[in-house]
Amino acid sequence: MSRLYAGGLGRKSGQAPGTLIHVGEKHASKVTLAIMDYTASDLRELESLTLAEALTFQASKAVTWLNVTGLSDTSTVGTLCSHFGVHTLAQEDVLHTAQRPKVDIYDDHVFMVVKMIRYDEKSRELDIEQVSLVLGDGFVITFQEKEGDVFDPVRQRIRSGKGAVRTQGADYLAYALMDAVVDNYFLALEEMGEDIEEIEAAVLEHPDNDVVSSIHHLKRELILLRRAVWPLREGFGTLMRDATALVKPGTVPFLKDLYDHTFQVMDTVETFRELVSGLLDVYISTVSNRMNQVMKVLTIISTIFIPLTFIAGIYGMNFRHMPELAFPWAYPAVLALCLLIALGMILGFRRKGWF
Amino acid sequence: MSRLYAGGLGRKSGQAPGTLIHVGEKHASKVTLAIMDYTASDLRELESLTLAEALTFQASKAVTWLNVTGLSDTSTVGTLCSHFGVHTLAQEDVLHTAQRPKVDIYDDHVFMVVKMIRYDEKSRELDIEQVSLVLGDGFVITFQEKEGDVFDPVRQRIRSGKGAVRTQGADYLAYALMDAVVDNYFLALEEMGEDIEEIEAAVLEHPDNDVVSSIHHLKRELILLRRAVWPLREGFGTLMRDATALVKPGTVPFLKDLYDHTFQVMDTVETFRELVSGLLDVYISTVSNRMNQVMKVLTIISTIFIPLTFIAGIYGMNFRHMPELAFPWAYPAVLALCLLIALGMILGFRRKGWF
Amino acid sequence: MSRLYAGGLGRKSGQAPGTLIHVGEKHASKVTLAIMDYTASDLRELESLTLAEALTFQASKAVTWLNVTGLSDTSTVGTLCSHFGVHTLAQEDVLHTAQRPKVDIYDDHVFMVVKMIRYDEKSRELDIEQVSLVLGDGFVITFQEKEGDVFDPVRQRIRSGKGAVRTQGADYLAYALMDAVVDNYFLALEEMGEDIEEIEAAVLEHPDNDVVSSIHHLKRELILLRRAVWPLREGFGTLMRDATALVKPGTVPFLKDLYDHTFQVMDTVETFRELVSGLLDVYISTVSNRMNQVMKVLTIISTIFIPLTFIAGIYGMNFRHMPELAFPWAYPAVLALCLLIALGMILGFRRKGWF
Amino acid sequence: MSRLYAGGLGRKSGQAPGTLIHVGEKHASKVTLAIMDYTASDLRELESLTLAEALTFQASKAVTWLNVTGLSDTSTVGTLCSHFGVHTLAQEDVLHTAQRPKVDIYDDHVFMVVKMIRYDEKSRELDIEQVSLVLGDGFVITFQEKEGDVFDPVRQRIRSGKGAVRTQGADYLAYALMDAVVDNYFLALEEMGEDIEEIEAAVLEHPDNDVVSSIHHLKRELILLRRAVWPLREGFGTLMRDATALVKPGTVPFLKDLYDHTFQVMDTVETFRELVSGLLDVYISTVSNRMNQVMKVLTIISTIFIPLTFIAGIYGMNFRHMPELAFPWAYPAVLALCLLIALGMILGFRRKGWF
Amino acid sequence: MSRLYAGGLGRKSGQAPGTLIHVGEKHASKVTLAIMDYTASDLRELESLTLAEALTFQASKAVTWLNVTGLSDTSTVGTLCSHFGVHTLAQEDVLHTAQRPKVDIYDDHVFMVVKMIRYDEKSRELDIEQVSLVLGDGFVITFQEKEGDVFDPVRQRIRSGKGAVRTQGADYLAYALMDAVVDNYFLALEEMGEDIEEIEAAVLEHPDNDVVSSIHHLKRELILLRRAVWPLREGFGTLMRDATALVKPGTVPFLKDLYDHTFQVMDTVETFRELVSGLLDVYISTVSNRMNQVMKVLTIISTIFIPLTFIAGIYGMNFRHMPELAFPWAYPAVLALCLLIALGMILGFRRKGWF
Repeated sequence: MSRLYAGGLGRKSGQAPGTLIHVGEKHASKVTLAIMDYTASDLRELESLTLAEALTFQASKAVTWLNVTGLSDTSTVGTLCSHFGVHTLAQEDVLHTAQRPKVDIYDDHVFMVVKMIRYDEKSRELDIEQVSLVLGDGFVITFQEKEGDVFDPVRQRIRSGKGAVRTQGADYLAYALMDAVVDNYFLALEEMGEDIEEIEAAVLEHPDNDVVSSIHHLKRELILLRRAVWPLREGFGTLMRDATALVKPGTVPFLKDLYDHTFQVMDTVETFRELVSGLLDVYISTVSNRMNQVMKVLTIISTIFIPLTFIAGIYGMNFRHMPELAFPWAYPAVLALCLLIALGMILGFRRKGWF
Repeated sequence: MSRLYAGGLGRKSGQAPGTLIHVGEKHASKVTLAIMDYTASDLRELESLTLAEALTFQASKAVTWLNVTGLSDTSTVGTLCSHFGVHTLAQEDVLHTAQRPKVDIYDDHVFMVVKMIRYDEKSRELDIEQVSLVLGDGFVITFQEKEGDVFDPVRQRIRSGKGAVRTQGADYLAYALMDAVVDNYFLALEEMGEDIEEIEAAVLEHPDNDVVSSIHHLKRELILLRRAVWPLREGFGTLMRDATALVKPGTVPFLKDLYDHTFQVMDTVETFRELVSGLLDVYISTVSNRMNQVMKVLTIISTIFIPLTFIAGIYGMNFRHMPELAFPWAYPAVLALCLLIALGMILGFRRKGWF
Repeated sequence: MSRLYAGGLGRKSGQAPGTLIHVGEKHASKVTLAIMDYTASDLRELESLTLAEALTFQASKAVTWLNVTGLSDTSTVGTLCSHFGVHTLAQEDVLHTAQRPKVDIYDDHVFMVVKMIRYDEKSRELDIEQVSLVLGDGFVITFQEKEGDVFDPVRQRIRSGKGAVRTQGADYLAYALMDAVVDNYFLALEEMGEDIEEIEAAVLEHPDNDVVSSIHHLKRELILLRRAVWPLREGFGTLMRDATALVKPGTVPFLKDLYDHTFQVMDTVETFRELVSGLLDVYISTVSNRMNQVMKVLTIISTIFIPLTFIAGIYGMNFRHMPELAFPWAYPAVLALCLLIALGMILGFRRKGWF
Repeated sequence: MSRLYAGGLGRKSGQAPGTLIHVGEKHASKVTLAIMDYTASDLRELESLTLAEALTFQASKAVTWLNVTGLSDTSTVGTLCSHFGVHTLAQEDVLHTAQRPKVDIYDDHVFMVVKMIRYDEKSRELDIEQVSLVLGDGFVITFQEKEGDVFDPVRQRIRSGKGAVRTQGADYLAYALMDAVVDNYFLALEEMGEDIEEIEAAVLEHPDNDVVSSIHHLKRELILLRRAVWPLREGFGTLMRDATALVKPGTVPFLKDLYDHTFQVMDTVETFRELVSGLLDVYISTVSNRMNQVMKVLTIISTIFIPLTFIAGIYGMNFRHMPELAFPWAYPAVLALCLLIALGMILGFRRKGWF
Repeated sequence: MSRLYAGGLGRKSGQAPGTLIHVGEKHASKVTLAIMDYTASDLRELESLTLAEALTFQASKAVTWLNVTGLSDTSTVGTLCSHFGVHTLAQEDVLHTAQRPKVDIYDDHVFMVVKMIRYDEKSRELDIEQVSLVLGDGFVITFQEKEGDVFDPVRQRIRSGKGAVRTQGADYLAYALMDAVVDNYFLALEEMGEDIEEIEAAVLEHPDNDVVSSIHHLKRELILLRRAVWPLREGFGTLMRDATALVKPGTVPFLKDLYDHTFQVMDTVETFRELVSGLLDVYISTVSNRMNQVMKVLTIISTIFIPLTFIAGIYGMNFRHMPELAFPWAYPAVLALCLLIALGMILGFRRKGWF
């Protein structure tokens, strides 16, 4: 459940704003710094460098992408951020990994928070990891909590020089990284879509209680996904309109495209939500219908045999004076009467359309 | 289900923006180019021409409509687009046929994505095909995935010279094509409306589980239709306001009319959605009511005969000392008692209004 | 069902915009032209005049109201409209009587589409007829499909000279006609309100399946009514703001009043919709409750008598060695036991609050 | 039900706008005029004065509050309004007491319509009365339908000179009167809140059908209340922004406060609506749960005894060749078998968690 | 329930605006005044001072924070407020502790109302207390109803000089106090989130009626929480935009951060509301499903044994002429028949998928 609320923000209550405390799941991994520093012609890539080395890149005239993995060592993060001129409030937000996605525009840098999402097909749960991104003049810094990300295709493009990324500035790099994050949402949606399809079939064909649980579960994941995506639209809008100092006009159509993709993710999430909500109604309808079937069977059988049993009971009584008992044709007559009653009932039910 | 999510966008994750990959269902058909090049007085129409021939029309001073069917050969599409000056992001969107409908305005051309819709009455499913349209200075290029479209009436009008299309520019042609697409939505709605009418009757008269499935199905198709139409309103609004360089003032009232039609489609879709949603509630109400009827029958029969069977059981006991058994009037008395009890019960149920 | 969708628009697919085809129900009546031409002092009224006569009034300096009934003769309508300078798109909309209500402002005339509504108390259905109105400089043309309208009070006021209508211009006349249409909505609402009251009583007192059908029916009529009224608000807003050339400042407060009335109709429609939606929930609650009552009766009777019948069955067995059968007090003892069990059960149900 | 729709507006259909006809419930009371004419130092108060006397106050330089009770004499109202320069459309609205609350700003006066509300605790119905208020230069005229209002505290403050009312102008007086109306909404809400609390307890503890009726009833009253309050927010907003000629800057913070109160009423109404809507779901859940309990009892008893009765029936058969009947231990064995079966069933139900 | 409506506002109806009456729960505690008066270098802290002493601080050039606990002594509050120049409407709102949260901007001070929230885990109820805050030039006054608040961390930071608070002005202090209030909301949300988790498990595993009550309860608390938080967003927005005289530019990013936190609280509240609403549907689904199970057991047992009992009843009849009774193989034949019927039924139910 801790995934549901803005967990951890409560725990830091009372700290002065700007105090650097890592609030989030503690992952053992220590801070790892990796750098890609490139121009159209050159590329320097370092997988793991010290803080001191990292700081020297601030002076680099090339486009610098500094990727920070692991947030447990707050002093490293603090030193780095301060050196690159990141606002203290942004520093705080880097470390509080339960932030709402957002784009904050400061005087000489832009701070963005997005959620990197993977859908775990087994547990059918979203794995949500916060990625913070600082776009400054000539540099991008990304902060992740855990090893493993969705940026490998971007790294690949930087290395190979394919696409426009090497010839563009830091703003395009920031765009490319955000785009990689948003593209990954479609993968999660695709898998969720398949789950919906399965549940849909189950609801109509064999509606048991596991289906209810699955529907509820999927609904919750969709709420989480929406919460991760919804604020991005406003954020990217802000980025296009207000970050004119850092975002070159040539990058704006790409941001517009990204904005459209976010819209499309939202659209799909809303569609899924409507479908999944509808499924519970379908479930209730189907169960009602099945109960109606069960009731009809019970009613038909009971209604036919209960009166017959009464008749048999009558002639099972031990009164001495029951003249019928002696009539030779009485037994077959009673059997015939029972048959008649049963047939009459069956006809009656037919007419009511019960079977 | 793949029709539900923005399928395919996930699959291209990691590609540089602007990379041309056809994402969508692969249709065997190769790329076919057809052209209509006309002024008020002249018309050149070519059904199938080579890429090289097509490129020559870029210099044509007449209004040129180039229709491209089949998107599997991405290099042809790319060459064509580049030659006509289409932005790389637009080129990418032409090939990704799971785009959200939209209108993007570039410096010297407008790029539109719409969905061509047919309602298959047998499967009761919408057949949705993406049509991309580029409106440039003096030319319109349309891209379709599959053979067969809704543009024949427009072709007819161009050939016959009826209506205003031959005397107007490329902007009017773009309008006429969009109008043909939107007009077709009404046909789909008309057929869906008839389906709703059928389901409505079924819900009230013989509510079985197939009805639930039909309602759910129709609901899903309406969600898909809405998703195809909803973004158009914003798109056409943008077109009227912002595309002033390419859209002549005389065409604006026609675009306004198109905008109104889109509104009317939306209105009808929303009406249908409300009706279909309401039908599930009606279904549940009807089933509840029927179950109530069934329960009443069961209860009436059981309540009357179970006590009577008990009485018969009493006198079926084999105790030696049961003085009543010897009384000559005992048997008729018990029968009369049973009759009385049954009549009393029936009166009681009458008073409760059970039948 | 054809009343639900924008019927007919589909049928004209493929026609050039501006093509005049009457799409709607074909009413046998041919086109009838009636005119009222008045100043503060003079009034010329002609009930039925030829097209040629009608065209002469275009030159009239008085306020001219030309009422056209019957739309089957498209050429008459076309000639008339062209003579009075009505835009081709407006001409097309006059004839397509499934338009969404709207106000289109052209250079020298305003084109309005509204729905004239009557509530048929027997079938409980709305009778919706399209009225188109063209307001030009010094003239108003109204187009109706069928005989019979809601304009008689306006005609009466023009004839008698009561009220401001004779001393005002064509804009005030247009206002007065629209006002007559909107005033009539209140009559329909009044009658629908009485129906809701009836259904409300039925739901709480004798909820049968007809009630479900009535609720669904009323819901649909309210959706239709809303669709007829909702767009008017925007339309009248446009009229006040943008039609400054044709609407005199003195008429604006009257339009504002009309706008407020439209709002009030909407308000009432929404209130009705909420009430009617709520009624289905109330119905389901009431039916659930009744089913609960039925179940309790069944359970009480069954639970009391089924064990007793078993006891009677025990002593109806034919084992040779059942010593109790010989005891003289056994029969009364078993009867007493049965009574005790029954009383115990009844007490138990009492404690559970079942009756 | 007549309280639900904008009753009466329909009845005047066809009248010229501005025609003065009293549409509303006819209350026997004739028109009563009362006046308070005051400056900071002087106060003239007249309880019942003639129309002629009332008209003389138009020239008064003090702040004049003219309260008109009873609207049946339309000519008096008309003369009065015309003398004070009230617009004809406003005059019409005074008499049509089914108006939507609103604030209309004319050149030299403001016309307001509000609803005075009392909650009748016995019938649990809102008593809604229209109050119209004209704010002119130095005067306020209020129109009420019936005797009895919520203005006594304001009269008290004028008489005693307590508070700011005597030293402020007519705009402050209008504010004070509106404030008295809005303050009274809180009383109604307080009583409705107590009713909700009662129903809430009833739903969870003894959910019978009266509860459904109460919920539905309360829901309807809340819809009515919302309809009376909702338009006020826009109205008071207009008053603050646009009535600059008549509203002094010093009065604006008070209007802002009034605006906030209206917001708070709306907030509470919405909260109540959500709670009351939720109660029906809780009701259905509770009834479902109870039905489940009833079903379990029935099933447990039936499932245990029906097979036992069958066994007893077997040995009640009269076949000549049933060797078991002669065994001395057969009877106790059958009894033991019955006990075993019963115990097995009970254990089975336990394991299913049925009791 | 009194927590639901804007309690108390009704009770003061009729008072002149600005009249100081304490409306709220009366807490015995008398008014306690505490002060912190600080610059970057100095700090004077007084725990309990007289009104006269407090007033002297108005002249202090340092940042003065005056905390007032207990509102029963209205004259003290009135004197204090007037001395510090607080507007009479604000004074009134301080004492009416059922205010909607808001930010009112006056000429030389800002008045804010917020709700301090604690979630009582035992009663699962929110404890909501109003805190009013006046931000003036160089001073902040806070008003609380009861002892105990969430400001201790701020006091700690002022005393220790940690963080920026000592070096900033009164606007930053006001921010820090609001921030402490909003941070506390996360604690409440965290605890509510855990409750939701518990209820979620209960609904799916053992859905009894207590769960319905818990869901309803939680829903109500969430409505209350939303009502406390929702208006803050608009309030803080106003503060950033319009309070330029009192809020220094350097404080704006902090307010933006606070605004974002409020957004995040709202987001979480909405998520919780959706989840909790969904839980009732899940509950109904689960109960329906269980009822279906119960019905199946009943129907299987009844349907198998009722016909068998009838057969046994037949051969329990006492007719003299029942030839079968004499056949030696009749008894085993009947037993075999019963077995066959039972097996047939069981197979039939299997095929229907009933177990």
